[in-house]
Amino acid sequence: MIENAYYTPEFHGDYELIGIGRLDLEEGGSIPDCHLAVATFGTLNEARDNAILVTTWYSGTHQIFRDVYIGPDHALNPDRYFIVVINQIGNGLSTSPHNASGANASIGMSKFPHVRIGDDVVAQERLLREHFGIEQLQLVVGGSMGAQQTYEWMVRFPEKVRRAAPIAGTAQNTPHDFLYTKALMEAITSDPGFKDGEYSSNADVEAGLKRHAGIWAVMGFSTEFWKQEVWRALEFESKEAFMEGFLEPYFTAMDPNDLLCMAWKWQRGDVARHTGGDLAAALGRNRATARVMPINEDMFFPVRDHESELELTPNAQLRIIDDVLGHLGLFGVAPTYIGQVDQHLNELLDS
Amino acid sequence: MIENAYYTPEFHGDYELIGIGRLDLEEGGSIPDCHLAVATFGTLNEARDNAILVTTWYSGTHQIFRDVYIGPDHALNPDRYFIVVINQIGNGLSTSPHNASGANASIGMSKFPHVRIGDDVVAQERLLREHFGIEQLQLVVGGSMGAQQTYEWMVRFPEKVRRAAPIAGTAQNTPHDFLYTKALMEAITSDPGFKDGEYSSNADVEAGLKRHAGIWAVMGFSTEFWKQEVWRALEFESKEAFMEGFLEPYFTAMDPNDLLCMAWKWQRGDVARHTGGDLAAALGRNRATARVMPINEDMFFPVRDHESELELTPNAQLRIIDDVLGHLGLFGVAPTYIGQVDQHLNELLDS
Repeated sequence: MIENAYYTPEFHGDYELIGIGRLDLEEGGSIPDCHLAVATFGTLNEARDNAILVTTWYSGTHQIFRDVYIGPDHALNPDRYFIVVINQIGNGLSTSPHNASGANASIGMSKFPHVRIGDDVVAQERLLREHFGIEQLQLVVGGSMGAQQTYEWMVRFPEKVRRAAPIAGTAQNTPHDFLYTKALMEAITSDPGFKDGEYSSNADVEAGLKRHAGIWAVMGFSTEFWKQEVWRALEFESKEAFMEGFLEPYFTAMDPNDLLCMAWKWQRGDVARHTGGDLAAALGRNRATARVMPINEDMFFPVRDHESELELTPNAQLRIIDDVLGHLGLFGVAPTYIGQVDQHLNELLDS
Repeated sequence: MIENAYYTPEFHGDYELIGIGRLDLEEGGSIPDCHLAVATFGTLNEARDNAILVTTWYSGTHQIFRDVYIGPDHALNPDRYFIVVINQIGNGLSTSPHNASGANASIGMSKFPHVRIGDDVVAQERLLREHFGIEQLQLVVGGSMGAQQTYEWMVRFPEKVRRAAPIAGTAQNTPHDFLYTKALMEAITSDPGFKDGEYSSNADVEAGLKRHAGIWAVMGFSTEFWKQEVWRALEFESKEAFMEGFLEPYFTAMDPNDLLCMAWKWQRGDVARHTGGDLAAALGRNRATARVMPINEDMFFPVRDHESELELTPNAQLRIIDDVLGHLGLFGVAPTYIGQVDQHLNELLDS
């Protein structure tokens, strides 16, 4: 375990660490004492049937949902719903390589086992059922890796998901995404300071984390984001200042092993694992009313990859989000972004 | 100077090294004894007015043009034209960091000066005029960085270019391309074996060159290339085998400083340097009949970046090439690629 001030309530606001006990993993091994970091908004009704689950993306936490997506003016309205944001395993707030201690001391840092999207969803279902007594969800929604988890819910627990909204992410990770994620991982692991995962501080891997940010700059935003200098809206004066003041510090604050844990998981997201590789059969299990919401300028979860899966998914409709930011439109920087998400989610929640 | 067997006639077939003397550079400094590697096809007529210039891309040489683009069955027909392929400075065959010796010994390896697209074009024009007596070109054609050189010809020597065909490349490099190229460069320079450019063999930088290949895999091909497993057409059995058998050895054979010389040049291609930053004024100088030929699946020289420049370029028409390979469609792997190029170039040459 190493200290990292980023993964604290001081940076992330209130959240609760909820233990779900031992979590046996699809790849073998287990997390002896798995804790999930949970932030809730609103009140669970007596029937326990007004819950919405929000899942998190690579490098993301509940924070961005609290700040951008959730509120009385949004579709994710805590006056109406009990909204549960569960941080994914390995994201630095839930049990993760850098914070494994106590009963988890044996799986710290480089010894952390491989975790799959399915492990997260099993953990989330257990937490919702055992801790909150929630047996069915009004909605599961998440972006990017959060969309991978949403699809996993649709296929693994179809009877528990009334509605689903995967945003900018696919049910089966593409080979292109695998290679993209590989390049991200290699930017980190190639840093001599990484020391095969046994660094003493994330600062030892700063150069690798900056290169990792540099590759995100190329794929995470669109070509037009850079051409139109959209970063000026964030009050930077050059793309270099934007990188140094925004994208690099965003990632250098994070833990390298935690990012690698999530990246490995991202690379292998695939609901067809439930059906011997038959994606149509897997997606055919869906019973939720769904809105599939790609971002039109996304470079690595492009619209057409959503469309080909949509054809295999019953009860799903396409809603394309227009955002020049591309994949990182998920941050909600563009003033036009969240309104589109709210419109599509409201339509879905009213259906 | 270091030995590298890749940059020899054994690998590249016949070419001639033609000296053009001292080349003073836009960024300051000079190449004391600049040699350009030239491959010619066909015969220069007595009027010396049947010449076509072909320029080369990042990591490319005359070889790919000889093997794919030039021949009696192609638009670039040596029975009709005198076709001159000039390898760009820094590509390993022309004067480059790794081969600087003799009069150029003082600029070897890490001491090689920065070269710009404009320097290449000045060197090419001098070579064509002084060595071959060519004052006007029937056509200038090149892809990617070769397109940057083509645009530079159109703006710098408008009276010398009758026709022009930039393929998959722009007149003014985009900020997104700058960041992409930066990520490529950092994959190399971050390798401890790079030793600030003073390695003793490209093999010392193999890990960095492989990461560089890995980033090319993400941006050089399209998402659909990977999804459709187009690499099977090259008789590989997995994407990993394709990487290990094709893209990695392609780049690990090359010299790191040479690649960095070209990458620096690529990042800064900009015809608006002639007009105080006014791109419209620069492109407005064009007098050539032009076909601008983006590849529809290109991830980093996308169609719309060509379209916005096309609007500023007199006498130019758009011809979009359909190729699932994306940017690296330039290699001519798809059987449908070269036919499209030939059609557009024939139309242009007949105009």
